[in-house]
Amino acid sequence: MTANPPLVEAWRGGIVESFHRGALAIVDADGRLHSALGDIDRPIFPRSAIKLLQALPLVESGAADQLQLSDEELALACASHNGEEPHTRTAAAMLAKAGVDSTALECGVHWPYQDAAVKALVQRGEAPTALHNNCSGKHAGFVCLGCAMAGGADLRTFLRGYVAPEHPLMGEVSAAVQASTGFDLARTARGIDGCAIPTYAVPLRQLALAFARAGTGVGLREGHARAARRLRTAVAAAPFMVAGTGRFDTRLMERLGERVFCKVGAEGVYCATLPEVGLGVAIKIDDGNNARACEVVMAAVIEALLVLDEGDAAFMRALSEVRLANWNGTEVGRLKAAAPLRALASA
Amino acid sequence: MTANPPLVEAWRGGIVESFHRGALAIVDADGRLHSALGDIDRPIFPRSAIKLLQALPLVESGAADQLQLSDEELALACASHNGEEPHTRTAAAMLAKAGVDSTALECGVHWPYQDAAVKALVQRGEAPTALHNNCSGKHAGFVCLGCAMAGGADLRTFLRGYVAPEHPLMGEVSAAVQASTGFDLARTARGIDGCAIPTYAVPLRQLALAFARAGTGVGLREGHARAARRLRTAVAAAPFMVAGTGRFDTRLMERLGERVFCKVGAEGVYCATLPEVGLGVAIKIDDGNNARACEVVMAAVIEALLVLDEGDAAFMRALSEVRLANWNGTEVGRLKAAAPLRALASA
Repeated sequence: MTANPPLVEAWRGGIVESFHRGALAIVDADGRLHSALGDIDRPIFPRSAIKLLQALPLVESGAADQLQLSDEELALACASHNGEEPHTRTAAAMLAKAGVDSTALECGVHWPYQDAAVKALVQRGEAPTALHNNCSGKHAGFVCLGCAMAGGADLRTFLRGYVAPEHPLMGEVSAAVQASTGFDLARTARGIDGCAIPTYAVPLRQLALAFARAGTGVGLREGHARAARRLRTAVAAAPFMVAGTGRFDTRLMERLGERVFCKVGAEGVYCATLPEVGLGVAIKIDDGNNARACEVVMAAVIEALLVLDEGDAAFMRALSEVRLANWNGTEVGRLKAAAPLRALASA
Repeated sequence: MTANPPLVEAWRGGIVESFHRGALAIVDADGRLHSALGDIDRPIFPRSAIKLLQALPLVESGAADQLQLSDEELALACASHNGEEPHTRTAAAMLAKAGVDSTALECGVHWPYQDAAVKALVQRGEAPTALHNNCSGKHAGFVCLGCAMAGGADLRTFLRGYVAPEHPLMGEVSAAVQASTGFDLARTARGIDGCAIPTYAVPLRQLALAFARAGTGVGLREGHARAARRLRTAVAAAPFMVAGTGRFDTRLMERLGERVFCKVGAEGVYCATLPEVGLGVAIKIDDGNNARACEVVMAAVIEALLVLDEGDAAFMRALSEVRLANWNGTEVGRLKAAAPLRALASA
């Protein structure tokens, strides 16, 4: 096995202390490769990085219109959120529109990812619910899709076991992933995601293609193209919902708006689309590191591909070359995008 | 650069989802190599994995005897602890014996690493202090060493700026690291550790040698040999102090007692000594992952090198092949020590 190249280096004391290898594909909507680093044809589990694709049926089915889902709610359907109060409130509102409550969710329960949200719960003497699960918005979106699919049947009955690959709801969701990536999910590895739904292994090349398509509409059927546009617009209008306080996705889309849609996934996966240059991006860090590895890579990719004004360029550089401080606030090192990323051509 | 081999694999859905490359040295006290994987001659920052070596002067100087430090206190001097109440109480007691309080500590402040300790602070409406810093025991040990070094001088005055490489206290600590590893620290990279003291880059081969020496006494001067034995005995008697609830080091030494001394360091470093087989072990994970990478490697190394009864073997296997569950408790994959670790010869 040829090793993927180092994409991010953690410097301390004048040497590289640790580094993250990985692979990166940048593709246009016709499947033409703009750039590749490492092995982009090995199928990898995209995890939460493809929530946008998984939310296409929610819009295409008419469920989003029928339930009058807001931008905030559609953004939350694409989110891995912090479990902050606006996130849980919005998830609850989506469920209420569908006529159910959080007991319909099959994503499981975990404490919020954000420290302040944990401390707020503790201070109120409360325990987390399924609404705090970082995937509760995606699952609430599934429930809303269920409204359009259940027909005359009782929604709670229809939803039972909806996370199973064989359930018609997951069938719709997986079909949208297959249609947008152009990759046959029946013939690839299938795992169980953290929130209990299936995750299918797809090569980075196909993931980048799907996001180039989602950013341009080219190569998608009309219903998916319109749904992708609506979801991107919603996230750009409500970027807090897709992640939360201090999070990379939120900060980036607050800053750059519709110029970028990006989404992190567990185990070091990142997908993005840059509509103005017609490119999709997919990243997998070999070791699965999220916060410090794939975010740095994504920031460097955006720096390379977009024409940025001085303020935006400085904003991005602070994300692709990150100051590391110790507990006294002293700078002890830097996280840096590695040389091959700095050599990426502009779009 | 030849890539280090994968040492740990994260499996999901029948494929390797992520993996961790790294290097491993197993050496005896005469410097003979038992086993090596990857590049063991590149200097790496050992970070907190060498707190045992950094605590040698505390004992050799007579400070530990003079202040009648208990096993708990000596174990805490070697610790990266959770910031649980017994840890902070013990650190405070060490400082009191030296006649100072937590304001003497220069390690900085951070919230405890353990969720329950964070929640306990929040529930009491309290903020963390330097006592909660995972290195507070090591720093309290430095303060106690200061008692033996300050002579007639005022201790607070002597201690001021003790984290600087040029301070006589750090000079003593670094000299012990140099003597035990046999590596010239003046000629290697120096960084600033998370707790503000210097960290010097040392190859895994020399780190493993130092721990083989610390486990056997062979190759150490008498004062260091006795100090190493006293510190190992103290940690074996009070393994909770070295880490805390649920932590690998604590669990392992609670189970195996003096058969193993092991210590994690930031950025994927692990050092250990197995006195009964006369071997030292040093691990560095390329990507800096601690909890799921170097612990799995260390567990597999111990399985290979020690003769274990059935119960201990099963205990270790659960640490070298770890069940991964999602938020619903469903098994979704496994963390596994990679093939080269399973092929390690016994001691």
